[in-house]
Amino acid sequence: MQRTRLDTDRIRAARRVIDPVFLDTPLYRCEALEPELGCAVSIKLETANPVRSFKGRGTELVASLLAEHGPRAVVCASAGNLGQALAWSGRGRGLDVTVVASRFATAAKLDRIRALGAGLELVDGDHELARERAADIARCEGIRLVEDSLDIETCEGAATIGLELVEAREQAEQTGPAGPAELAGPAELAGPVPPFDAVLIALGGGALATGVGHVLKDLAPGVEVICVQPLGAPALTRSWHERRVVTTDSTDTIADGVAGRRPIPAVLNDLLLVADDAVLVQEASIVAGMRLLLDHAGLVVEPSAALGIAAILEDRDRFAGRHVVTIVCGSNVDGDAYRRWVGAAALPHRA
Amino acid sequence: MQRTRLDTDRIRAARRVIDPVFLDTPLYRCEALEPELGCAVSIKLETANPVRSFKGRGTELVASLLAEHGPRAVVCASAGNLGQALAWSGRGRGLDVTVVASRFATAAKLDRIRALGAGLELVDGDHELARERAADIARCEGIRLVEDSLDIETCEGAATIGLELVEAREQAEQTGPAGPAELAGPAELAGPVPPFDAVLIALGGGALATGVGHVLKDLAPGVEVICVQPLGAPALTRSWHERRVVTTDSTDTIADGVAGRRPIPAVLNDLLLVADDAVLVQEASIVAGMRLLLDHAGLVVEPSAALGIAAILEDRDRFAGRHVVTIVCGSNVDGDAYRRWVGAAALPHRA
Repeated sequence: MQRTRLDTDRIRAARRVIDPVFLDTPLYRCEALEPELGCAVSIKLETANPVRSFKGRGTELVASLLAEHGPRAVVCASAGNLGQALAWSGRGRGLDVTVVASRFATAAKLDRIRALGAGLELVDGDHELARERAADIARCEGIRLVEDSLDIETCEGAATIGLELVEAREQAEQTGPAGPAELAGPAELAGPVPPFDAVLIALGGGALATGVGHVLKDLAPGVEVICVQPLGAPALTRSWHERRVVTTDSTDTIADGVAGRRPIPAVLNDLLLVADDAVLVQEASIVAGMRLLLDHAGLVVEPSAALGIAAILEDRDRFAGRHVVTIVCGSNVDGDAYRRWVGAAALPHRA
Repeated sequence: MQRTRLDTDRIRAARRVIDPVFLDTPLYRCEALEPELGCAVSIKLETANPVRSFKGRGTELVASLLAEHGPRAVVCASAGNLGQALAWSGRGRGLDVTVVASRFATAAKLDRIRALGAGLELVDGDHELARERAADIARCEGIRLVEDSLDIETCEGAATIGLELVEAREQAEQTGPAGPAELAGPAELAGPVPPFDAVLIALGGGALATGVGHVLKDLAPGVEVICVQPLGAPALTRSWHERRVVTTDSTDTIADGVAGRRPIPAVLNDLLLVADDAVLVQEASIVAGMRLLLDHAGLVVEPSAALGIAAILEDRDRFAGRHVVTIVCGSNVDGDAYRRWVGAAALPHRA
């Protein structure tokens, strides 16, 4: 592999700095999903922690470095999850955290940022305007700007998920197909199920994808790294396919966590080195993915966390008979919106 | 502590036999719940595994012993979660598993038992009739009967949760109140939050309560062990208070996982040694607990898993300002029933 900005030894060291509450998250096969999807599916669950998303892995790294060496004041732009995680990590270390967000951001995320004691400034525009405003604040006030996906800590924090995946895969290989989790589920999977051979990763700014992708390509290069973005927010996926930064004028998706318009060149460069594919999915598939995860896995997820399931739904042939991991990266939803998405028709079990 | 039937060294050893997918489950503080509850609340999440309940810890122990020494055929009565877990553990070890359940059991649980390849026999009565029928099958066919809460493996498997709780508490004590998870949430919690001082445990047959209670009383005797049962299925709680087995003629609760009528004397004896209290909660509180866990923690839970939150809701004064752990023990629900329970009014966030 050509060198990305990330470093596997630094990622290993990061695990000693991140609060254990964010590490060693559940990874388990979810057979109840499989008849609908036609492949073996394992879930890497990043929602069972104090901020309900994977972002704490990166903000723990950022905040611990700042607490040791840096300024005590920090600002970030966020669709909500990074801001909530930075507020949590900063509070524990006495940092002064400001979050800039779109006033259209998910209310539940904004509520939690406030509840965690961070300053919250709303801009009358989308996430890209929030990014500009956060940069202005950092410049004017001379405080630290945390830029999601550009700051290497946000990528390397997320990359610790990759280490956990690789370690689990090595264990599964040692146990062999006779292990308890390895027997057949649906008809498509008759016979032993091998260790996973693909990982589906939500693609937003790129921290999660470049982080997990870097570790997989370094330590388990045979595993396919597939990024998934909504058709309504395709900038980084298009950039990956055209091998140059492509921006869009707007976004139109319920997947608020991944709705960027202006990819960061350095992140694209890394993504070009570690991703095997980047695919776009429709809104209806994202909603169908959320419903499947609720009905068959008992999981409440935010739209970004259903992108992987959406990708399988849109291309069952590609995954047929394989073993796929999808990272369930967040569960911060507004109740009303969630109820609309997964609605009454979505719960098929009849008593 | 007087001696229970359980043994802490055996419980430690059990961790080497149980598939790691069931161990080291998330334990995290959930501040979004706290304004409603008036105390610090941490969740021990037992639903992010292949069977969506804690029962795999016990069935792994049962099945591994049988695979080594015992008969290859096994039968159990189950409200659904034990059966699903025994089917999973038995399948991985080539055991022939039969589950007897009430035909009124949760359909989603019965579906999963079938999907995992176990034989399923339904009885036209409640869980106590299923217990009788399972015992008959074992006797007639000369196969192993697994009796939940009576068989020590079911208690000692569940008890591994207690080890994880004690270890987390010791770590929190070492980190001290300056640790990141220890700062104040709602007004009731101004100032540092100490390590937890009470654990709320769903009480059904008693395996979970005697298991976790044994370990806590052995290794962290200052922690209050509080069992919670529905008013509509009070047999073991009444037995605990009267210090003798009290049976009931019927049960009337949505908490299917804990709806027994005939406590087992040996289990009651252990419970008398390890529980500090046993309380009964109303159905409305169980539903309110399920809604709170959905709205503020993003967790789908079955009614039994909301008993702890229900207990706090019914006695806020008792827990005010304290730090309480509640074990979220299962998430196997029928979609339609779940939608009815948590209904439209339950999702308060307005976009």
